[in-house]
Amino acid sequence: MSNSVSPPLSAALAEQLAELNRGTAEVLVGAELERKLRRGKPLRIKAGFDPTAPDLHLGHTVLINKMRQFQQYGHEVTFLIGDFTGMIGDPSGRNATRPPLTREQIEANASTYRQQIFKILDPERTRIDFNSRWFGAMNAAGLIEIAAQHTVARMLERDDFAKRYKANQPIAIHEFLYPLVQGYDSVALKSDVELGGTDQKFNLLVGRQLQEHHGQEPQVVITMPLLEGLDGVNKMSKSLGNYVGIDEPADAQFGKLMSISDELMWRYFELLSFRPLGELARMRRAVADGGNPRDVKFELAIELVDRFHGHGSGSAARDTFVARFQQGVVPDDIGSVTLTTDGAPLRLANVLKSAGLVPSTSDANRMIDQGAVRVGATAESLEKLRGRDHALAEGKHLLQVGKHRFKWVEIKRG
Amino acid sequence: MSNSVSPPLSAALAEQLAELNRGTAEVLVGAELERKLRRGKPLRIKAGFDPTAPDLHLGHTVLINKMRQFQQYGHEVTFLIGDFTGMIGDPSGRNATRPPLTREQIEANASTYRQQIFKILDPERTRIDFNSRWFGAMNAAGLIEIAAQHTVARMLERDDFAKRYKANQPIAIHEFLYPLVQGYDSVALKSDVELGGTDQKFNLLVGRQLQEHHGQEPQVVITMPLLEGLDGVNKMSKSLGNYVGIDEPADAQFGKLMSISDELMWRYFELLSFRPLGELARMRRAVADGGNPRDVKFELAIELVDRFHGHGSGSAARDTFVARFQQGVVPDDIGSVTLTTDGAPLRLANVLKSAGLVPSTSDANRMIDQGAVRVGATAESLEKLRGRDHALAEGKHLLQVGKHRFKWVEIKRG
Repeated sequence: MSNSVSPPLSAALAEQLAELNRGTAEVLVGAELERKLRRGKPLRIKAGFDPTAPDLHLGHTVLINKMRQFQQYGHEVTFLIGDFTGMIGDPSGRNATRPPLTREQIEANASTYRQQIFKILDPERTRIDFNSRWFGAMNAAGLIEIAAQHTVARMLERDDFAKRYKANQPIAIHEFLYPLVQGYDSVALKSDVELGGTDQKFNLLVGRQLQEHHGQEPQVVITMPLLEGLDGVNKMSKSLGNYVGIDEPADAQFGKLMSISDELMWRYFELLSFRPLGELARMRRAVADGGNPRDVKFELAIELVDRFHGHGSGSAARDTFVARFQQGVVPDDIGSVTLTTDGAPLRLANVLKSAGLVPSTSDANRMIDQGAVRVGATAESLEKLRGRDHALAEGKHLLQVGKHRFKWVEIKRG
Repeated sequence: MSNSVSPPLSAALAEQLAELNRGTAEVLVGAELERKLRRGKPLRIKAGFDPTAPDLHLGHTVLINKMRQFQQYGHEVTFLIGDFTGMIGDPSGRNATRPPLTREQIEANASTYRQQIFKILDPERTRIDFNSRWFGAMNAAGLIEIAAQHTVARMLERDDFAKRYKANQPIAIHEFLYPLVQGYDSVALKSDVELGGTDQKFNLLVGRQLQEHHGQEPQVVITMPLLEGLDGVNKMSKSLGNYVGIDEPADAQFGKLMSISDELMWRYFELLSFRPLGELARMRRAVADGGNPRDVKFELAIELVDRFHGHGSGSAARDTFVARFQQGVVPDDIGSVTLTTDGAPLRLANVLKSAGLVPSTSDANRMIDQGAVRVGATAESLEKLRGRDHALAEGKHLLQVGKHRFKWVEIKRG
């Protein structure tokens, strides 16, 4: 589709196309997407999800955000739960940890999904569907007919299959059927666009092929990149600990987001923020012109915390973050003192005085009353103490008075 | 299973085992067959057939004869028509000549089979079954579970798949499912023994594997060789023209069987005759001691013609054969004579006299009346003529009077 034969895009359509392309890894085929959009009718957007319903983190939301974008432009989004194969379990019997899911478990998992995805998607404009709806009714002959639409050689071209085949690692034949099952879902849904991670590209292309075989216009395949985790290097994942869970507390989310590099911040803006591209460009310019990236990072963190915890929770989390930050950071070189006891815990006010952190126990009590005293076993576990009766047992304690006075105190039996 | 731990076989069982092994290409595993037979219970014997119901020839009967043998020893034989995949047709759409079969066509084909196989098998002890009985009711999930029981690598070890894969010829994925479908038939039938051609060995072994997965004792696999055709070189097939069809006329069958070499005759005895091994051994000795192999070949031909055309038809075909044979064979050195005509055909009696085959036209007429005169364009097309009015046109004719008088006669316009 060349511009020489098509009339120029309207400004609205050009903006839509730019936003839909935003952050994508690949759009196959871009010209087809443009052609479909030009028709001005709502497109059917499909994205498939595992029926095992994980706790979603920001990495998962990259795809869901793209679904939301389509939704915002008036297209019809189907959140497809692949329960058909989930209900089979692992038929090879090799994976004992993957027993077949029951209908009840799948319903429960769907609820978990709903509770999470509707923080992003518009419930009114989201169709949740299950591929058991058509595969549950399909007989063995129907599946054989689908299997006839693909060759062994092409299936063995898929990266993971190719590697396993070369390494003489077994590939069970039903594994060849799963991409076809996923592809046939596109036929059943007559989808115009399918979204998936870059690791899904092969399967999404099978969908195009099966649609063509069934006389349908093939879907446009849009792959989204895997989001880098907080470390900016590895993909975000629970097992690597570099993630932000969408059900985590607001303060935890905020703090984690503030810890990312400035470079990663822009990546997160592209893939996670709903701000239009034009606004992102203005922010970039502001920082390039000497603006503080921390302030921009605040905006990102506020937007995301608001999304998952409701409007206003982002600013509240920022205030907490700032207050904590301003409380001061524990310095590396803290003096230490050793105190002795006959075995009974020592009163906090006395310890503060003995450690030289306050001039007198009455000063100590006043500071305690004001909430200006923190005690912990480590710098990370410092906690405000308000009770004058607090006493410290044998062991090592870190004490903080006000913002800047710190001391390690070791209490020993004398 | 060694003889050191098992009691010796009874004479009857030893004979049964020897007969069942007769003519086989492979028995996998022989010790298992012995163990199953020792239990003294009827075994379930399975053999699968294509639902397209060919006209059977002697090559097909090798397998059916083995089924009959099991039947004679009291075992239960299932003639399994693989209609399930036949009703799918060629789902790849590549083979337009293989449209899906309807239920009516399959029933009609089954009737054709019955009409032919019951010339060999005992109808009372033969179960005709269809694998659509279990696969028709199976859903897609069930087929996926079966597909999980085999690996891609092992499937690609099958000879024809290996060759096509190497040669970059496409293998559609459903082709990997067909051996599994055939294998699952053994599970559904709980078969103790499956019979097939040597080209079926891979598929029969898949049956063993699936049975084990389903907690069944694996079937014994017995492969039968492909029968050599009348030429003694190529396998018997319609397209090569080296076959004896079981629906051919008795005389044609007899003549064809009498044309085989003495060596091939023994092969046919082993695979096609129902005579016990002991009798075959005696025949061999008789021929070795100077007996005429032609007489033994008569026995084979009579047995087979009787089988397909009823008792007595074999001897009748032999009599016809002998009579024809004794009518004399056309010798190689036949004299020739040229006669001239003004364009009108010449009366047969006159030609016979002019050619010197009879002393007078009245002799000629008498011989014609007796049916002792044959005329043809070639030695093979000689036909008796009984009409005195018969006349010969221009051209070359072979004339025979009685058994031994021959002459080529060329009639030319003079």
